Amino acid sequence: MTDHPTIQIIAIPGIPLIRAGDDLAAMLLDRLIAADLRLQDGDVLVVTSKIVSKAEGRAVWLHDVVPSPQATELATVCQKDPRLIEVILRESKRVLRTRPGLIIVEDRRGFVCANAGVDHSNVAGEDWVLCLPEDPDRSALMLRRQLEAVTGARIGVIIADSHGRAFRMGTVGVAVGVAGVAGLLDLRGRPDLFGYRLQVTQVGLADEIAAAASLLMGQADEARPAVLVRGMPYPLREGNAQELVRPRELDLFR
Amino acid sequence: MTDHPTIQIIAIPGIPLIRAGDDLAAMLLDRLIAADLRLQDGDVLVVTSKIVSKAEGRAVWLHDVVPSPQATELATVCQKDPRLIEVILRESKRVLRTRPGLIIVEDRRGFVCANAGVDHSNVAGEDWVLCLPEDPDRSALMLRRQLEAVTGARIGVIIADSHGRAFRMGTVGVAVGVAGVAGLLDLRGRPDLFGYRLQVTQVGLADEIAAAASLLMGQADEARPAVLVRGMPYPLREGNAQELVRPRELDLFR
Repeated sequence: MTDHPTIQIIAIPGIPLIRAGDDLAAMLLDRLIAADLRLQDGDVLVVTSKIVSKAEGRAVWLHDVVPSPQATELATVCQKDPRLIEVILRESKRVLRTRPGLIIVEDRRGFVCANAGVDHSNVAGEDWVLCLPEDPDRSALMLRRQLEAVTGARIGVIIADSHGRAFRMGTVGVAVGVAGVAGLLDLRGRPDLFGYRLQVTQVGLADEIAAAASLLMGQADEARPAVLVRGMPYPLREGNAQELVRPRELDLFR
Repeated sequence: MTDHPTIQIIAIPGIPLIRAGDDLAAMLLDRLIAADLRLQDGDVLVVTSKIVSKAEGRAVWLHDVVPSPQATELATVCQKDPRLIEVILRESKRVLRTRPGLIIVEDRRGFVCANAGVDHSNVAGEDWVLCLPEDPDRSALMLRRQLEAVTGARIGVIIADSHGRAFRMGTVGVAVGVAGVAGLLDLRGRPDLFGYRLQVTQVGLADEIAAAASLLMGQADEARPAVLVRGMPYPLREGNAQELVRPRELDLFR
């Protein structure tokens, strides 16, 4: 079976609960060695935004949050905790849609998503919420540099979150931070099998990798917050998650 | 490495160009045997919508198409061939957005996508276009039944296409037809590690599998139109792609 082009998605086992200040790179290296998994050139390491956020101390204790009048008003519409809404607003550029139980924003990083990516689960207790990493592309780059420095392998790193979609049900894994691998893969102008030039040809590569990794990560199972994607058929290049953010002028649905 | 939870995405090599009337199941079985790949319980076979459409004779010769006045008018706005627009309109319930070079519709199957999934590449010549399978869920079910009858394995089948996203750049693989595997995976109410009940908990499972398969399929490389996904950590259940269509009343962005 190894004769056929094959991608492997491998869960890195045994990653402990992450706390603020933890050295994520060191912990991942430790677990990779324990699992006899050696990083190879071309590997893409996918980690959940949650463990990166936790290591970076991005948890917020709701008792410390004083909601603004705007947050209080919005909380009534959304039927959510005003302190949670306050945190969401601090993480957002603008609010796009609100409904009971739902708030969709453009977050500070440009991502259109529910709750600005602020997470109310898998933080130790209901009075804590977890924000996205401050600058997920930078977090991915730092993690990559640390892992490459130790292993000597040339790798990609993707920080993954789960987002809903405007026109489809269900969340899917998406890339919120990227380093060492293309966010967008540009196939513009490459001829197809019949020599006809393709028109729609930018692939959301890092999002597809994040979705693939998400198949193993699950949603409620934080025992698998890191996944190795091995055997990518594309050569790695520098890239970032901002490539995946649709500019407002190309947005037809806002 | 086989000790860790691992998903394999395996390209089925050597699939020939597909023509109308071809027995896709027989061809896939032939290639699986030639590659010494035996279907196993829990495998998910992902095939491009293109090869299913071709086998089902869904190519349209543009010289046979007489554009309606509406199509001609829309073609001016979209700067596209009026005959192509006519085919797109026949495949659509309604037009949602138009711009020069772009037409986004709700297609007959409920998918919000560009061009109603009508493809102008990888069909033999510029005067041919290819529509989505008439009923991709049914196509997936038929393919699954044929493959299961011969192999005795209990498998899932996903028919994948590439769609753009409202708020993110780049296309990603999505499921347009599904059989034998969940479209949506429902984690509602499952407690997380701290016992806190998850709120956002429906995962677009078939879309994530399609995205994973798309990493190997590529866009311009029709030599890899079928991919085996092996090692899914979820038990297979009956499902379909209609689970992934967001109902209009839950759509905030149309």
